[in-house]
Amino acid sequence: MRAFIILGHKAPLNPDFTLNDLPGSAGRLDVLCRCVNAALFLSHDLRRDVEVFLVLQDQLTICISGQHVKRLNPDERSTAALIKKALERIQHHHGSDDVRSTPGITVSRKGLKQVLGYLTAQRFVPILLLENERSFRGCFLPERVAFVLSDHTDFSETELELLLEFEALKLSVGPQIYPASHCIAVVNNELDHRDQAS
Amino acid sequence: MRAFIILGHKAPLNPDFTLNDLPGSAGRLDVLCRCVNAALFLSHDLRRDVEVFLVLQDQLTICISGQHVKRLNPDERSTAALIKKALERIQHHHGSDDVRSTPGITVSRKGLKQVLGYLTAQRFVPILLLENERSFRGCFLPERVAFVLSDHTDFSETELELLLEFEALKLSVGPQIYPASHCIAVVNNELDHRDQAS
Repeated sequence: MRAFIILGHKAPLNPDFTLNDLPGSAGRLDVLCRCVNAALFLSHDLRRDVEVFLVLQDQLTICISGQHVKRLNPDERSTAALIKKALERIQHHHGSDDVRSTPGITVSRKGLKQVLGYLTAQRFVPILLLENERSFRGCFLPERVAFVLSDHTDFSETELELLLEFEALKLSVGPQIYPASHCIAVVNNELDHRDQAS
Repeated sequence: MRAFIILGHKAPLNPDFTLNDLPGSAGRLDVLCRCVNAALFLSHDLRRDVEVFLVLQDQLTICISGQHVKRLNPDERSTAALIKKALERIQHHHGSDDVRSTPGITVSRKGLKQVLGYLTAQRFVPILLLENERSFRGCFLPERVAFVLSDHTDFSETELELLLEFEALKLSVGPQIYPASHCIAVVNNELDHRDQAS
């Protein structure tokens, strides 16, 4: 099982944005959409063993389950439309429970702490992808891994502290600093190689 | 130096498409836009040593030079807008020479054969990324590599024959079948590792 948590620091909390301006008025939602693509898509297929958690401004979390999701297409605009629907669904719901939006997509009033709590309770080990850390290529990885990535901005100090409280491993994807979606594609490929070898 | 050639089998040859429907009426232009992103972007930077060739229906080629390109943003829509501009620029130009569209982007009435001819004349070795071939991870790679990928459809028999005429190496990116943009992200990461080690 693989999980990817992506922190959207400027991502919208309500559905009042236009699909025609994802990088601007939708707070770089294009970045999150590309992360969803990189996490879940194979060529003409979906990764059924992957869950994606989009944490929006540490206030809302949209979870996309590879096992259950339907109507997900690879392009940014249609993924953003599914996110918009999830934001419409949560708008008048004030509890902290998960609300189903479209098949395989839920939304809740949870932040990073709650998502980490949920995943670590299921024996996922959080892995923090940073520059200038040990390469994750050669190193041991637990069976259940939850990779945590930030959007186009750096992790905040508070986020880093929280991740270390949850005993996140710090690893690096490579010698350059990559966009989050590229990191996810590389991580998935590395895990595929390991799955094949095991 | 790295080059990526991406074959768009249904990509538009004229600018009469809407940016609101890249996967549909624009012939899966979203796939090509994600490939441009994967080939050229680092986090908050561009790869200056990369050139991308989008070969549209084997009739037009749009070349994006990492060294010279300006106004390129990571999202699909704005990349598609640059492609649209290039298609406007070539519409009334009937020669086979390269026409400059926006800074770092040229367009020409060339197909795969001409692009391969141009690159191999500059000592690039074409590498054909296919499933079920030898993994490119452990193998020797020439200094100048031109990776050739297909969009959401398979290579045609004619394309495969042409690539073998140009002595393309056949290699595989991993044990799964990946979207072209994921392959590019993985290839760039692998080459970064090699550059660091050399």
